[in-house]
Amino acid sequence: MLVALLPGDGIGPEVITQARRVLDALAIDGLTFEEALVGGAAYKATGHPLPPETLDLAKRADAILFGAVGDPDCDALERHLRPEQAILGLRKELSLFANLRPATLFPELADASALRPEVATQIDMIIVRELNGDVYFGEKGMRKTADGKREGYDIMSYNEDEVRRIARVGFETAMARGKKLCSVDKANVLETSQLWRDVVIETHAEYPEVALSHMYVDNCAMQLVRNPGQFDVIVTGNLFGDILSDQASMCAGSIGMLPSASLDSNQKGLYEPIHGSAPDIAGQGKANPLATILSAAMMLRYSLNMPAIADRIDAAVAKALAAGARSPDLGGTMSTSEMGDAVLAAL
Amino acid sequence: MLVALLPGDGIGPEVITQARRVLDALAIDGLTFEEALVGGAAYKATGHPLPPETLDLAKRADAILFGAVGDPDCDALERHLRPEQAILGLRKELSLFANLRPATLFPELADASALRPEVATQIDMIIVRELNGDVYFGEKGMRKTADGKREGYDIMSYNEDEVRRIARVGFETAMARGKKLCSVDKANVLETSQLWRDVVIETHAEYPEVALSHMYVDNCAMQLVRNPGQFDVIVTGNLFGDILSDQASMCAGSIGMLPSASLDSNQKGLYEPIHGSAPDIAGQGKANPLATILSAAMMLRYSLNMPAIADRIDAAVAKALAAGARSPDLGGTMSTSEMGDAVLAAL
Ligand SMILES: CC(C)[C@H](C(=O)O)[C@@H](O)C(=O)O
Ligand SMILES: CC(C)[C@H](C(=O)O)[C@@H](O)C(=O)O
Repeated sequence: MLVALLPGDGIGPEVITQARRVLDALAIDGLTFEEALVGGAAYKATGHPLPPETLDLAKRADAILFGAVGDPDCDALERHLRPEQAILGLRKELSLFANLRPATLFPELADASALRPEVATQIDMIIVRELNGDVYFGEKGMRKTADGKREGYDIMSYNEDEVRRIARVGFETAMARGKKLCSVDKANVLETSQLWRDVVIETHAEYPEVALSHMYVDNCAMQLVRNPGQFDVIVTGNLFGDILSDQASMCAGSIGMLPSASLDSNQKGLYEPIHGSAPDIAGQGKANPLATILSAAMMLRYSLNMPAIADRIDAAVAKALAAGARSPDLGGTMSTSEMGDAVLAAL
Repeated sequence: MLVALLPGDGIGPEVITQARRVLDALAIDGLTFEEALVGGAAYKATGHPLPPETLDLAKRADAILFGAVGDPDCDALERHLRPEQAILGLRKELSLFANLRPATLFPELADASALRPEVATQIDMIIVRELNGDVYFGEKGMRKTADGKREGYDIMSYNEDEVRRIARVGFETAMARGKKLCSVDKANVLETSQLWRDVVIETHAEYPEVALSHMYVDNCAMQLVRNPGQFDVIVTGNLFGDILSDQASMCAGSIGMLPSASLDSNQKGLYEPIHGSAPDIAGQGKANPLATILSAAMMLRYSLNMPAIADRIDAAVAKALAAGARSPDLGGTMSTSEMGDAVLAAL
């Protein structure tokens, strides 16, 4: 089985190195790796953030382990050349429409959350975010108004097939957990959301055992602070999912701890930490590699069908934390490679 | 001076009653009131959520004190008949483009926040939300795709004039406070955001003393949990402002505590608590009226030019809290009218 390694920008290479060390230590039979450039790093070397070789490797691979993209040097480039286009392009080209973002707190880290420990420790949810549609991929551009003013525009839309397939992932995820699904939209203002809500309600007929609720996105942002323990599975669109999943992850502890999976309809997936490229700390050994190591575990579980090995990684991370491993984001002083050492020692 | 009272739906009438009691007790010379129906209540009585008489009163008035709209009975109505259209219609018809949402914690309530007290007590910010544009007011509808699928769509857009006038409110607000402005967008994905960012940067030239920063909306949702004390003034579009201001208010304490102002370019304004109509607790005397009472204070300060009387209301609310006044959302048992009594006693 082939894993594509796409380290990317900023702290991406540092955290991918540690995940690779963990995977190597497990000496998994038949697992091979190929690495390629992506993001600002690819743009600087080849003139394109997602070069054809990289896309080709991603297509050939059984799974993709991704670091991060984003580079302030590239902010002034035309949109299609910016690092972010690489991850958006991979999601779209590979039809990775289902983004799973678990938000749970390692009990060892209850003190690292900005929330009161009694609130933070209740958090155990998965956010299912649609990744191939919404205002991300509609027509967009700059134009002039009738009286010559500059105007930016982006079309938000979803059709019923797009909503139905992600709604099903939401319901399936809920069936495998607490059987509670909360669909988040802004149906009191947006027609896109009205269609979303209508189709989620229709799809509910296929999953009568799941308790379905609906929440407006502004209320959800509030509830994720007030009482995050109320959520089991949240399903939402691309834009709202972007905002809410980052928020939820922070409620659950450090952004340096949380992995994610982006899946197609055959369980092929791209795995990445939910944090970004953090250019301000890149190259300084300050990044927490655990989110990427946990993403590798998700990869073994969802795409490579090796749940037992995935469990071993999860357990090793918990053990390392229990033994006191703490990078700066967790209030400690350990470097990126020392955090990797701690997980290897626990394995 | 004429104040339009628009109680609306759910807990709206209960909280407006208490704000009216406080204003009456102050016996302000020349202040008169007229009341009108709005939202679901207006729809049920007249067939329209914003009847012409109500709009006319709002136009004639010097300021508007608004309760809340939203009624589950109306969820299945066509969009233009739903209660929410009343507040959207008032904002648009009266050109109330600048929504000011302060988020600060009364020190007496540090224990009511889900955030750790040491994080919550640092919060002292104003969110300046644009209220007349964005995906809220663009063309929207249901259509069929080429292969006959239902599709919902909404056009997001801003032109440079719209961005410039709200950016100026952001900069002015920052000049009157800590001189720090953070503009929030999603310029790495949206052209609307790219124009927003370009124009905010251009407008900065008029306010060289203000320290301007930019943040992506997903990161901002995270930072509002991680380190909300970093923000002084946030300026953002209609949709992101909807989400972030609700989130920020919850970080700052109970949603039952926070007022808001929606202003036109002549300081005429609509004042409302940021909470909604809360149909689940309507008519039970459980609603916290303090957000509406504080909204009345904002009205006196911004639109009616009576800052000294506004200060008296703010002080009375603080005194009532210090004396132990607590509605259920604050962990207490006082009813809506008992909370009103407590403020009156403190006046
Ligand atoms: C980098 C950016 C385009 C991306 C997104 O908005 O989807 C990121 O924020 C994420 O959530 O993976
Ligand atoms: C009721 C709704 C249309 C409104 C909005 O989205 O603006 C509300 O959430 C608010 O923030 O005032």
